[in-house]
This record gives sequence, C-alpha cells and structure tokens, in this order.
Amino acid sequence: MARFPTVTDVALASGVSRQTVSNVMNSPEIVRPDTRERVQAAIAELGYRPHASARRLRTRRSSTIGIRLDPMIDGISGSVLDRFLHALTEQAARQGLRVLLFTATSPTDEIAQLQRLNDGADVDGFVLTSTFAGDPRTQWLLDNDIAFVTFGRPWGDDDLGNPQHLWVDVDGWAGLHAAARAQQAAGARRIGYIGWPSSSDTGEDRRRGWRDAMLERGDVTERELAQLEVSTVDGVAQGTAAMLKLRSTAGGLDAVLCASDSLALGAMIANPERVPIIGYDNTAVAAAIGLSSIDQSVEAVATGVLELLTGEFGGHVNAAPESLDPRHRMIEPRLVSRELSSIPLGAVAAASA
Amino acid sequence: MARFPTVTDVALASGVSRQTVSNVMNSPEIVRPDTRERVQAAIAELGYRPHASARRLRTRRSSTIGIRLDPMIDGISGSVLDRFLHALTEQAARQGLRVLLFTATSPTDEIAQLQRLNDGADVDGFVLTSTFAGDPRTQWLLDNDIAFVTFGRPWGDDDLGNPQHLWVDVDGWAGLHAAARAQQAAGARRIGYIGWPSSSDTGEDRRRGWRDAMLERGDVTERELAQLEVSTVDGVAQGTAAMLKLRSTAGGLDAVLCASDSLALGAMIANPERVPIIGYDNTAVAAAIGLSSIDQSVEAVATGVLELLTGEFGGHVNAAPESLDPRHRMIEPRLVSRELSSIPLGAVAAASA
Repeated sequence: MARFPTVTDVALASGVSRQTVSNVMNSPEIVRPDTRERVQAAIAELGYRPHASARRLRTRRSSTIGIRLDPMIDGISGSVLDRFLHALTEQAARQGLRVLLFTATSPTDEIAQLQRLNDGADVDGFVLTSTFAGDPRTQWLLDNDIAFVTFGRPWGDDDLGNPQHLWVDVDGWAGLHAAARAQQAAGARRIGYIGWPSSSDTGEDRRRGWRDAMLERGDVTERELAQLEVSTVDGVAQGTAAMLKLRSTAGGLDAVLCASDSLALGAMIANPERVPIIGYDNTAVAAAIGLSSIDQSVEAVATGVLELLTGEFGGHVNAAPESLDPRHRMIEPRLVSRELSSIPLGAVAAASA
Repeated sequence: MARFPTVTDVALASGVSRQTVSNVMNSPEIVRPDTRERVQAAIAELGYRPHASARRLRTRRSSTIGIRLDPMIDGISGSVLDRFLHALTEQAARQGLRVLLFTATSPTDEIAQLQRLNDGADVDGFVLTSTFAGDPRTQWLLDNDIAFVTFGRPWGDDDLGNPQHLWVDVDGWAGLHAAARAQQAAGARRIGYIGWPSSSDTGEDRRRGWRDAMLERGDVTERELAQLEVSTVDGVAQGTAAMLKLRSTAGGLDAVLCASDSLALGAMIANPERVPIIGYDNTAVAAAIGLSSIDQSVEAVATGVLELLTGEFGGHVNAAPESLDPRHRMIEPRLVSRELSSIPLGAVAAASA
C-alpha cells in the first residue's frame, strides 16, 4: 500500500478491535495468547512499525509531554489521576517520551504555564485533565496550534463525530448503568444515587447512567426516583450526610451507587442495614475495605492518549482529515465486585445515624 | 557581613531552628503567628533573600529536576512516594523549578537514564529515592559530579557527620520508638513487631526503634523479644500471615507495630482480640479504616531536598566545605493516633484465623 500501515489496518487484518492491537503492543500480558499471536502475525505481515508513528512527536524538540499535577487532597479523590500518571509515564517511556510536571492555581494560570513551556521548547505536547464545558485551556491550545490530548471530553455538541479536540475519556454513563443493572439483576428495585451537583459534566454523565437504568426498568416512578437521589460536593463526611438524608427520604433502599469512592466510604459509615454500596474509581481504599467500585482502566486511557498524541494525528485534531481513525477513545470502565472486608472494625453505625 | 546571609543566620538571629525558618518560607501556615513574625523580622533585618540561592541551580540549563517514577503496585505501599512527588512538584514550582519524570527497570538502567538526561542537558539535578547500602546510582552521580539529593540515607559509616552525599530522610527509628513508648505509656508490655527482612536498611532502622524501646523498658527478656517479632516481605496478605504467626508464638499481645500500612492492614484482618495495631506511612487507607500510623511528613522532606539542591551546596556534597549547614536533614515523623473506624464491615475475623 502507498501509505504506512496503521493500527486500523492491523486491526482489520487480524479481526480484532484497535484497542486490542494497542494492548498487544503496550500491555501484551492482558491479551489472550492466541489473539496476541494473530495480531503479531498481522503486524509482521503488513510491516507495521508500532513506534514509527511516535517519531512524529519525537523528532520535534524535546521528546517530552507536559501534564499538570495538582496538590494531593485526601489520597482518595484524585488518586485515579496518580494512577493515570504512573501508567502514562510508563507507557510514554516505552516510546522514548518523558513526562514533565507543572502546577497551576487556576485555568488562567495554567494557560500561562502552557505558554511558557511551549515557548521554551520544553515540551512537544500536553495532556490535559479535568476538562469542562467552555474550557479556556483547550481553546487556547487550539488557537495556538499546540499538540495536546485531553483525559476528559470536550463536553461540546458532537464530541464523538466532530470533536473540538482529541480526547480520551471513560464512559461514566456505562459504568453506572452497568452497576445499576447488576444490582437489578440481583433483585434490587429501589437503588439510590449519591452524586455531585449538576454543574459537574462528569457527574451528570454518571448520574444519567443510574437514571437511565432505573427508567428503562420502570420499577419506580419519576417522583420516587427524585427521592432516591442526593447531590453533594465530594468528600467522606459529605457521603455520610448524604446517606443519612437518603435513608430518611427514600423509604427503603436496596442498594446505593455513588459518584466516587470518597462518597461511598462515607455512606458505609451510616449503613447499619448493610445495603450494598458501590463506589467509583476503584481506589486502594475501596480494595482495602471491600467496597465494590467502578474501575476507570487508566492503563487503557494512557494508551489512547499516547496513540492520539504520537500517532497520525500527532496531537492535532485537524491533522489527517481523511483518517478513518476516530479522534477520540471512549474507554469502557469495569465493575469490580467485592465482598465486604473481614477487618474486625467497630460496628457502632447506630452512633453515627 | 561579607557573605550572603544564610538560613542558619536567620535561625540564629530569630532563635528558632533552621526547619522553622524553612517552614516560614515554604509552609507559613503551619508556623505559629508570633514565631512567623519573629522569623520574618530577622529575614528583613539580615536582608536574606529566600530564593536567591535557588538561582545556583536555576541559572544552569533547564530549571528542571529529574526523578524516577515507579509503576504503581497496590496503591498503599509506594503511595508515600506519590505524596512526596506532589509536595516536591508544588514546592519546586514556587522556586521556578519543574519536575521531569523518568522510569527505570533496574539500578543499572537508572544510571543509563541519569546519563542520558544529564548529557541531553534536560535536567540540572536529580532526586533519588529508595537508597540502599552500596548504591551504584549515587556512586555514579558522585563520580560524574552531577547535582543530586536523595530521599533516603547513604547507609554508610557516618551518615550524619561526614555523609557520602546530600540526603534527607525520615527517622524511622524515632517513629517506631515513639510508637512503642506511647503503647507502653498506655500499659502495653508485650508489643509485637511485624517488619521486613533484615536486608532492608530502612526496615532495620524501624525495627531497632521498636527493639530499643522494648529493651530500655526491660519488660521482656531477649528471648521473649525474639518471639514478639515476625519478618516478611511487604504486602496485605503477608501482614495477615505474620499476625497469625505472631499470635501463635508470642503468647499474648498487648499491641503490634508494623513496618508499613500494608502489613498493618493485613494484621487487622487477623485481629479478633482487637489489639491496637500501628502502621507506617499514614496512607489514605489508614485514614479510611481508622488505623493509627506513623506519618513521614513528606512536605518537610521536600523542603529539605530543595534546600540541599538549590541552596549553598547546590546538590554537591563537597561544595561549601566551610558551611555550618549540615549536609543532611533528618525529619522527625509523627504518630497519628486514630480510633478504629465505625464502618460497619463484617466481623468474621475468626474465619480468617
């Protein structure tokens, strides 16, 4: 063929998804041996060079990717971004790319940092996290034609077909929808939801997953659904307060889904009836206490970010306009079900209720 | 005075420790207002410029510090290094310095990465973590006259008076000693210890803190002391196994100290008698489940690392031979005491015993 073979060519030739091809190259241990061999055969046959595309970024200036690191809060919320940073650094290193950290106090300050790093030729491209609708950072990067990919959607009109910029995100809707469905399959009818205020796009996405699963099933009326929901800012204490409120208004709960592990941990403190509670982010805390949680698959997010940053798009949404490769990656989260831990902690839930 | 005033001058003039002067400059919120004002007055009077010393490193090439990031394991062990990375990045940014991450698969590979980053002028100095006796990385950096500071002692003959290189470390001995003393003060006599194999210098340091407190008090014989101790590699399951072993050999336990929160979490799973257990690292998991733990004060470690890297030594142990400023910082950890959480988890400890 006239052009260099792409990941899509390999995927078509071996009858697997693009994600699986990426996995074979970046995390071969998670791919079934027979699938792995088939993909590797296709790579050899087509003469695909996995890292040739990385040169697009690498031959520029610094072989370095910039990413903002925020102050640590409670070690629960935000820890998913630490896990992502580890995965990104590890996978970038395999392509000869390094990660440069910077800090910022506001979106405006972050733009100043982006400009400084770009002007100083310190960085070839950026990974932005925690995007929001009307994000001035992504607009500035687009205006200045700087390579970048976001972990987080543009939250615009048509993020999938015609995205404002290259992005990777985790399908929070699907995560909550699957968790609600799993509880329904186990007999739950009145499933509560503890989420964030509606100003959070990410939060609304997760909330709709729970809501749609509830409405599809039709076990409860719209009016009942409103009583099964509490919104609060994130935090452990907030989760406890929300759970107490939910128990007083919902009139019986079969399960509770939460927008974060912090909220879920808080909810568990006010759960004397041991209603199943499911968190989000699958943090170390969830694993330690036996909390079921939705895992964001940060390894797959990092793989997608690097594909879009170093592949045929090279971090530019308008590069390669004829490409069949989508300009986003939507990662499917997975529900990690756990039995409550056998740690013999106190059982004085009544005291907090 | 003929030379520029130093932190030591400010400390002497205001009658506080060097650490307190650092705190006033880097974390003023943790200093008492009256002390803060006294130190600030001395800074003004002496004409001390807190950040002038940073120029030593900054005027070199890249304004960048390199540090290795390891793959994430269980989110408990190793998370203290994530907390340190956040603190370092935040404090470095206040001096106009950035942090570059790299990965390495072995000490030999790490030396290759150090060389590449140094040759490429990508980095002005390094922060090394997890030092060990006879560490080839620090020897290579010394041989090549490259600026660096370690989080971790050289583990040599005279680390305090004549250290092989600049270092910052947390006094694990003091942490375990204080924890044992606190338990003794509360009436505990038979205090067990779950630690790491003796090949770990860090582990031996912590173990000696427990051991010395026990011998000083004289409640148990050497022979009994040997029965109060179990060594194991780190991990939650290993902590459970060690606790079961300890309970079978120790013949009654009043408290158990552990070399890590992972081990302590594991020990709690096999603790039906609810013996007080104390971990090490004060992780998010410890906070979530109400586990007392020894906190490494990573903010103070980061402050010390930056002082040695950007101050009069500029990352070189043999710079400023006449300086009165020590070439190390030994940080005092602090015991964080918690009541066991009220999370109503299962209480089937007998099943795991």
